[in-house]
Formats: sequence, C-alpha cells, structure tokens
Amino acid sequence: MIRITLIGSGNVAQHLIKAFTKSEEIEIGQVFSRKKEALIHLIGSDKIVTDFSDLNEADLYIIAITDDAIPKVSEQLPFQNQLVVHTSGTSSINILNSKNRRGVFYPLQTFSKNKAVDFSMIPICLEAKNQSDYAILETVAKSISKAVFPISSEQRKALHVSAVFVNNFTNYLYQIGQEICEEHQVPFEILKPLIQETAEKINTLNPIDAQTGPAKRNDTSTIKSHLAYLTNENQKNIYKILTQSIQNNGKTL
Amino acid sequence: MIRITLIGSGNVAQHLIKAFTKSEEIEIGQVFSRKKEALIHLIGSDKIVTDFSDLNEADLYIIAITDDAIPKVSEQLPFQNQLVVHTSGTSSINILNSKNRRGVFYPLQTFSKNKAVDFSMIPICLEAKNQSDYAILETVAKSISKAVFPISSEQRKALHVSAVFVNNFTNYLYQIGQEICEEHQVPFEILKPLIQETAEKINTLNPIDAQTGPAKRNDTSTIKSHLAYLTNENQKNIYKILTQSIQNNGKTL
Repeated sequence: MIRITLIGSGNVAQHLIKAFTKSEEIEIGQVFSRKKEALIHLIGSDKIVTDFSDLNEADLYIIAITDDAIPKVSEQLPFQNQLVVHTSGTSSINILNSKNRRGVFYPLQTFSKNKAVDFSMIPICLEAKNQSDYAILETVAKSISKAVFPISSEQRKALHVSAVFVNNFTNYLYQIGQEICEEHQVPFEILKPLIQETAEKINTLNPIDAQTGPAKRNDTSTIKSHLAYLTNENQKNIYKILTQSIQNNGKTL
Repeated sequence: MIRITLIGSGNVAQHLIKAFTKSEEIEIGQVFSRKKEALIHLIGSDKIVTDFSDLNEADLYIIAITDDAIPKVSEQLPFQNQLVVHTSGTSSINILNSKNRRGVFYPLQTFSKNKAVDFSMIPICLEAKNQSDYAILETVAKSISKAVFPISSEQRKALHVSAVFVNNFTNYLYQIGQEICEEHQVPFEILKPLIQETAEKINTLNPIDAQTGPAKRNDTSTIKSHLAYLTNENQKNIYKILTQSIQNNGKTL
C-alpha cells in the first residue's frame, strides 16, 4: 500500500482523488486545500487539512495546483527528503524546491469538473531524479492508468504545447462552429458526427494525409465565398490565417 | 426501387456508390466518370459511362463533383425536367441548370479514399424546389442514413463554413501537434486520447463551457513560455491569434 498526500483542490486534484480512491494499491493519507468545502463531497473531512503544519508522513506528495504557485508551495512544505511531485505539463521538474526528492506526475488529459473521465486510458508522463523514485511513481501511475511513459521535462513541454493546439485551440474552433450555426439558426448537432469522425480519423491516418477542404484543394472561389459569408471579423481573421497556412503546408507565412 | 445515376468519381461519389450498393431500395443505373479506371473497383464496367450521350433514364441524377464544374456539367446533361441534385455544401441549389428539376443532397461528413465510414450516422442535408421532389430525396437519403434534415441553401452555407472550422482547421491543428511532437522526439500517440476526449466532451458540454488551458485562465507566464518554445514562426502566429481570441472570448481583435 502506497500512502499519498494530495495538495490542491482544482480539477486535476479532484480527478486524482476519485481515481486513487478506486485503486486498491493506494491510500490517500491527506488532502491539503485552502478551503475545506471544495473537497468535502469527495473525501472525509478528517483527511482534509488547511494548514501545512498538519501534514503527516506519506510515501508521495502530489502538488496539483497552478504552475505559478508550485515553487512557493513546495518551499513551504514542513519536511525534507520526501518524494514531492507536481502535475504540470509545462513546468520543469526543477521548479520544485530541492529540499525534497523531486518528480513529475503529469496526466495528459483535459479535466472538467462536470464530466467524468476513464482514468485507465489517460497517458501519465513521469519524471524523477533517480530510479527508485521513478519506480514509486510508476507503481502509483500504473495503479490508475494503462498508459504510463517516462518523459523528460523538455519532452513534456513539447507535449503540453501540442496539447494546447489539439485540445484548447480545437475546442475553440468548435465554439466558432457553434456560433456560426446559431447565427444562422442551424442545429449545431448536425456537425457532431463530423467532429467525432475528424478526431477518429487520425487513429488510422496521419493528419497531413487526412486533410481535406477548400484550403487543401486550393478552391479559391469557395474560400472567397466563405470569407464573404462570415460577418465576424475575428472569425474571418482566423479563417484567413489557417487557410493560408494549410495552403503553404505549414511553411512560414 | 429508385434508380439513381451518379455523376463523378471522387471521394463523395465513391462513398455514395458504396452506400447505395448496400441499400435494397436503390438501384445504381449508371455512373458517369471521365476515367473508367477510377471506378472499376466499385461497380461493373458496363455501368460506367464516359460520355453524356450514353446516359439512360433515372429517377434521380446526383452530381458529385467539384463546385466549379457543377454549372457546366448540369448544362451538358442531354435531357430536361429530370430530378438533378448536387452534393455540395457551399453551392446554392440555383447553380444547377434550370432545364431540370433541381435539388441538393449534401452528406455532411469528411470522406477519405482510404477510410471506410458508417453512412448510417452521416447527416444528409436535403433541399428541393417542391414537395414531391423533396419526398424522393428523403426516401433516397433515409435508405442510407438515420440523420436526414431539410436545410435551405442559406443554412447549408452556415453548416459548410462551420465544417471548415471544426473539421479542416481542427485537423490542421492536429498536424501542428504532430509536428511539434516529432521535432522533440515525443510519440504523437500520447496525445490521441486527449484528441478523442476533446471531441467527445462536446456531446455533454457546450464548447464554451468545455474550454480549458492557459489562454482561458489568462496564464500569461505559460503563454510566454510556450511562445518562446515554438521555433516555427507560422506555429507561433497561430498560437498568438487563437490565444488572443480565446482571451477576448471571440470578440474582434
């Protein structure tokens, strides 16, 4: 049994609490949260601490908070030489205070408060400063996920930047699609099978081979007609830039 | 039994041939293609014609070719007062020559030559000039799909423009994600569950409510660090514009 203490109460912390609660190899010792109310629906209130001085001993401390706050929180921990990791996609392992043994436990998925996720399918990217700490992280990660990878801080950054493109920006394009539909009283529902198929397609084709549409086939009359149809300058601007970029095959404009 | 003649040999034409071949209510009378070889793997060569003058009578003629060629081809058809439709998302019903009864049969999906699709889940958007022609199109559409919608030319254009955002541009963001991974020797595979979840999420949440990431939470230090990490000016440019747009919540920049 590995005893874990979680620090944080946001989306990632909450999804980790849920996942570890189901795991038979993991015991959640304590969860640190500034506000007790944020976690009371997930874990017994005796396990929630609001003061660092109340933290007990654990095999692993997982800091799941915003990137900016990681250095200070890791410095405030009232112990040393323990295994302390963060869950950030973008921060180096070295932003953790060096008084403890450092690592990274980065679940690469998008977490929303109101949507359950199947943790077993979520890739978890691990990093540690030595083999024995890596082994602990690997045991913990494999207790909740089938997809565990050793990923360096440098590689993790590539993944995180890519994730912004394929998740954040993609979702924003869905939002634009919905806005255009609503403006013209068409149900956005009609586009959902296309959205699913677009995502599924890349399981069998490289994105570059899956590309279709007016930009790809240099269909200038359709492009012109789309630009004339769009009434929102921001949408027009995004349409132009992505179209040019596809036409140039990603080469610098 | 409804007898259909297909005109065209591209992706849409080929997927329609496959779908209609499976339907018990539809008979493919002929398929017109400039090059017989393009279709010989899908249908008997006796059914493929390469000259308009060889076209026989059918209940419905479906023109599945590039938008630019639709006016001329519909004019060249050697008959009149027949039901002739195109499959374009972007062209009006009126680009068809008026010597025939006009309509639109627009399957809203992305078709690749090398990937099978389940036609029953593909929304088909229909338009006709009168009720009886609409009824024929509806029977044909329902023989291959469960999702059939009456959509005017104006509404169809909104769908098509939206589809460019949620399909073409989204797929291009996947390509950028892959390029960033490859540049840093990280397997793109790790991002695929995230891509699937991003698409699935909007079945339960509106895109605007599903938005996460550094732009959404105004995490300027992460945004700066991502921009410094990107080496490709084109990727940087797209990152900046989409980030600003999310920060402004879609308002004109």
